[in-house]
Amino acid sequence: MDYCFELLKEDPSGARRGRLQLPSATVETPVFMPVGTSGSVKAVDSDDLWGTLGARIVLGNTYHLYLRPGHEVIRELGGLRHFMGWDGAILTDSGGYQVFSLAKRRSIDEKGVEFSSHIDGSRHLITPEKSVAIQKALGSDVIMAFDECPPAGVETSYLEGSMSRTTRWLDRCIAAWNRHESSSVLFGIVQGGHNESLRRLHTEEICGRDLPGYAIGGLSVGEARERMWEMSELSAKLLPSDKPRYLMGVGFPDDLVRCIGHGVDMFDCVIPTRCARNGLVFTRKGRLPIRNARWAKDPRPIDEDCACPACTRYSRAYIRHLISADEITGHRLATLHNLYFYLTLMDEARGAIDEMRYGEFARGFLETWGDGRHET
Amino acid sequence: MDYCFELLKEDPSGARRGRLQLPSATVETPVFMPVGTSGSVKAVDSDDLWGTLGARIVLGNTYHLYLRPGHEVIRELGGLRHFMGWDGAILTDSGGYQVFSLAKRRSIDEKGVEFSSHIDGSRHLITPEKSVAIQKALGSDVIMAFDECPPAGVETSYLEGSMSRTTRWLDRCIAAWNRHESSSVLFGIVQGGHNESLRRLHTEEICGRDLPGYAIGGLSVGEARERMWEMSELSAKLLPSDKPRYLMGVGFPDDLVRCIGHGVDMFDCVIPTRCARNGLVFTRKGRLPIRNARWAKDPRPIDEDCACPACTRYSRAYIRHLISADEITGHRLATLHNLYFYLTLMDEARGAIDEMRYGEFARGFLETWGDGRHET
Repeated sequence: MDYCFELLKEDPSGARRGRLQLPSATVETPVFMPVGTSGSVKAVDSDDLWGTLGARIVLGNTYHLYLRPGHEVIRELGGLRHFMGWDGAILTDSGGYQVFSLAKRRSIDEKGVEFSSHIDGSRHLITPEKSVAIQKALGSDVIMAFDECPPAGVETSYLEGSMSRTTRWLDRCIAAWNRHESSSVLFGIVQGGHNESLRRLHTEEICGRDLPGYAIGGLSVGEARERMWEMSELSAKLLPSDKPRYLMGVGFPDDLVRCIGHGVDMFDCVIPTRCARNGLVFTRKGRLPIRNARWAKDPRPIDEDCACPACTRYSRAYIRHLISADEITGHRLATLHNLYFYLTLMDEARGAIDEMRYGEFARGFLETWGDGRHET
Repeated sequence: MDYCFELLKEDPSGARRGRLQLPSATVETPVFMPVGTSGSVKAVDSDDLWGTLGARIVLGNTYHLYLRPGHEVIRELGGLRHFMGWDGAILTDSGGYQVFSLAKRRSIDEKGVEFSSHIDGSRHLITPEKSVAIQKALGSDVIMAFDECPPAGVETSYLEGSMSRTTRWLDRCIAAWNRHESSSVLFGIVQGGHNESLRRLHTEEICGRDLPGYAIGGLSVGEARERMWEMSELSAKLLPSDKPRYLMGVGFPDDLVRCIGHGVDMFDCVIPTRCARNGLVFTRKGRLPIRNARWAKDPRPIDEDCACPACTRYSRAYIRHLISADEITGHRLATLHNLYFYLTLMDEARGAIDEMRYGEFARGFLETWGDGRHET
């Protein structure tokens, strides 16, 4: 059997240690998946990801790859893993979220979403069937169902309509997934906005399909962080315990530590990579804005306790200089550092759950993190 | 003794094998020095340079580092080598060429050059004394004399005046260099444009100072390539055989192969790094424009015979996609490839001279290179 999720341990806090056997790799959970939007986790390559960072799964964006270079090109070249020279597993999103946030003009109806490319304005239609076909062409290990992710604050009536359509789209995705011969698995996505009863209702609907895994969608879309934590906790606890739970698009390091405690197994987010390129690096003490003039002559590494390639060789002063001068190597070193931070944090979280001391680990982390502002 | 140039072998073609003992590293010649403009060889880091590429010397740009982050900051942080985390040697240019090509408004007189920063428009004056002081603060192994490098096609009378001023500036550089305690060495620069008798005259003048090394300046400034080859041959042959000969700002791979045959020992150029970022990569067959649509589905590496990190793991199709999508990793992989190509070429050239078969090596290379257009 190609796919299997094994729940290894459950900590009293609710945190779970699992092992996800995917066609291309075995993934220890909780896991953070670096985001490789256009077939590249920005500023690092597949060697860095596998060797230096120890990643075993990355996320690819269906919307971007469909538009450029095109999923048929990638299929011809042996799939996204082969295209990227990546030995690990790949989860692809459905394209839905990106269409809503990036495409120029888009209109949604029962059939799917029509939109204009943000690259050249060309018109396209993505349907649930098309999304699954693209993800199959990309050769993903995990295919995400095509859903609508409404922004925070939409009216309940809109939310209800969107939710039901997402359920109908899921059934079309399942049918399309079953038609294609491949070892990929399909995850369903729970929506329901920030409305508890809708979340309950949609979780029940989606989980009624008995899929290999479930994602919590529709969070981290502009709401207060406390609200996101509440909703992710509620959603995670409603999901079946024998399937992986994936919280989409989350988040900052303290979000991950909290949500692991709610029983979430998988995360993805552009925060570590995007922040790095903007000069925001992470340490246990919080976010350190490396462009700040106070680091101009600081010979210390970003984090004295960090073993990443940036911290073992370079000073804050140097990385600040590179980012300020818009040097590619500055973007790369900051990205290596942030991803190393995220993946090491996940490794430590797994260790804490293994030893049934996750509550203590999380409290310790959140205390040192404080308000997330690294001041020294 | 910190400094020594040993001429190991001279090939019948005129090509020379040498060993340059610098305070920070031993450098085998002929050598190509990657250009690290702002304290970073763009898109690669010091680990890449030392380990993957085997570089032992890089060039730093005085003009850029003086403006940002400032030579005093770098001095406080232990010099440019320490700032960059670089274990090899560093040669810095004098800032003269950059002031003339990059600064916004500049005026030249006997004292030095006054200019406006290309970054913020601030006014600055660089004199021969200041240039040496900056380069000393950077902790360079090799300090270049402050000179004027006129563009191709200026009138002989201007060339003569500029040349004499460069000589007077050299004497001021020598005086400034002698005043500072350090292990750095000073190279003089021969100018004279494309006028053979002025070249002869200036070579005699500059070499009369008995310096640790000499550079051929004022070439590759817009003239035809054949003229550059002629002038570099003339200049190289006029220089003393017991000192290293450095041809500044040259060039394409076939320029290097030709000029090594004229007895040049050292080169620097932004071509491999700048071309890489623009999607122009090099193979033995010439320049390959990787953005070209013909490579969109090409599963082959850039060069099947190349052992660089780009060629051992990634296809033309993938690197083309990354460069087209303006992905940082595309710039980095293309840069690694081009520098690997240049440094491997130098390694092979050294091997050929060691075996006294450089003429044959150069003929073979130039025949395969042809007109430099890689077509397949």
